[in-house]
Amino acid sequence: METGMTKPKGIVLLSGGMDSCVTTAIATRECGLAALHVSYGQLTEAREHHAFMEIADYYGLAERLVVNQSYLSRIGGSALTDPRIPLREADPSTPLRAGLEATGIPASYVPFRNAHFLAAAVSWAEVIGAGKIYIGAVEPDSSGYPDCRPEYYRIFNRLIEAGTRPETRVEIVAPLIHMRKQEIVKKGIEFGAPFHLSWSCYRSSEKACGTCDSCVLRLRAFEQAGVEDVIPYSHRVGFASRRAV
Amino acid sequence: METGMTKPKGIVLLSGGMDSCVTTAIATRECGLAALHVSYGQLTEAREHHAFMEIADYYGLAERLVVNQSYLSRIGGSALTDPRIPLREADPSTPLRAGLEATGIPASYVPFRNAHFLAAAVSWAEVIGAGKIYIGAVEPDSSGYPDCRPEYYRIFNRLIEAGTRPETRVEIVAPLIHMRKQEIVKKGIEFGAPFHLSWSCYRSSEKACGTCDSCVLRLRAFEQAGVEDVIPYSHRVGFASRRAV
Repeated sequence: METGMTKPKGIVLLSGGMDSCVTTAIATRECGLAALHVSYGQLTEAREHHAFMEIADYYGLAERLVVNQSYLSRIGGSALTDPRIPLREADPSTPLRAGLEATGIPASYVPFRNAHFLAAAVSWAEVIGAGKIYIGAVEPDSSGYPDCRPEYYRIFNRLIEAGTRPETRVEIVAPLIHMRKQEIVKKGIEFGAPFHLSWSCYRSSEKACGTCDSCVLRLRAFEQAGVEDVIPYSHRVGFASRRAV
Repeated sequence: METGMTKPKGIVLLSGGMDSCVTTAIATRECGLAALHVSYGQLTEAREHHAFMEIADYYGLAERLVVNQSYLSRIGGSALTDPRIPLREADPSTPLRAGLEATGIPASYVPFRNAHFLAAAVSWAEVIGAGKIYIGAVEPDSSGYPDCRPEYYRIFNRLIEAGTRPETRVEIVAPLIHMRKQEIVKKGIEFGAPFHLSWSCYRSSEKACGTCDSCVLRLRAFEQAGVEDVIPYSHRVGFASRRAV
């Protein structure tokens, strides 16, 4: 799993969640990787940072950068950074995507967040000479965040072209963008992604709560893929499609 | 000069330099303003922050946000954040823009910097409900930075549209983008911009060095506009167009 002594040609945005874990598993087969993690004052940051370090260790990614963008929590406007804004309890009995659309953008949306992450990745890529930035953004069956859509990344790639040195060639790659969550689990299994080291819960750091949007998406994805999710949960929701045991 | 008690409808990116000073002078006549300053580990940050506070005081801008993006100096790659990279001494005898083109992107370019600043402004705008972001970017006769071109801002505006809530309307406005530096001085005089409170030097915080690119651009602009620049300089370059006194 070592990337060896070659200079990284790609940067992976590694939050420590299941999507960035699978993205790392895919990207590490394509090129040498450097790993970027952003701390932005999210409630579960210590746990996410731990997952980042463990996944980076697992893949032997020596070059790491942890960027502090905690001003995002001062700007606020999101349940992920402001404990006064309640995280929605996901309703496992409805198709999640439809449920999200009905209620609009979720309270966990951090205004324009991914632009901050990508900007850090582009600046670092330009300095270290990396040509690819891998991000685990997912559109279908997922969060409903506006900055997780293919169109957003197409425009961002044009922005990089316009806003960097003429000789700089950096491209954002989102290998999961069109996948459903259960496909991501299957892809992760296929590529040997260390799901046991990843962390997705928005709320808790000891045991995953099992009820926030992120936990429900994850649990449903594993369930539908027919794979056991081995991380600890304090509560595992039952899905409409699941028979009582 | 008070914006009164109304909610700010615009955000001005106020570094404290002459361009953002004039931009503030223009924008403050268009709408109530909130002021955003970014500390990113630049060598003269303490002096720039002081200029930001004084200009914001001058215009009675009560709502202020100072964002810490000092990870940019850890990422490095610029003479503005890394003391080991020398700042070029500008050659006052050549047309500056032509001189910059001949030597490529200047050493003071901070990789993809403006994307970080704009991302902070957009996130804040989305939370406080501001519709305009004013930035003092200038293309002609100026720095040669790739992220100071009109095309860059056109693309960024599309990115905002794609990457924020459907109901969010935020637009970047760069009122100086097509102006030559001497026109900016004249515009500032016309709008009563407090140039005496601004700071442009890349190198020094007590007296402006008078020899870095930023100082030479500023001194030349004032000279060509026929206006005295009252901030203190330790050295004032002579220009080819200037007769000895």
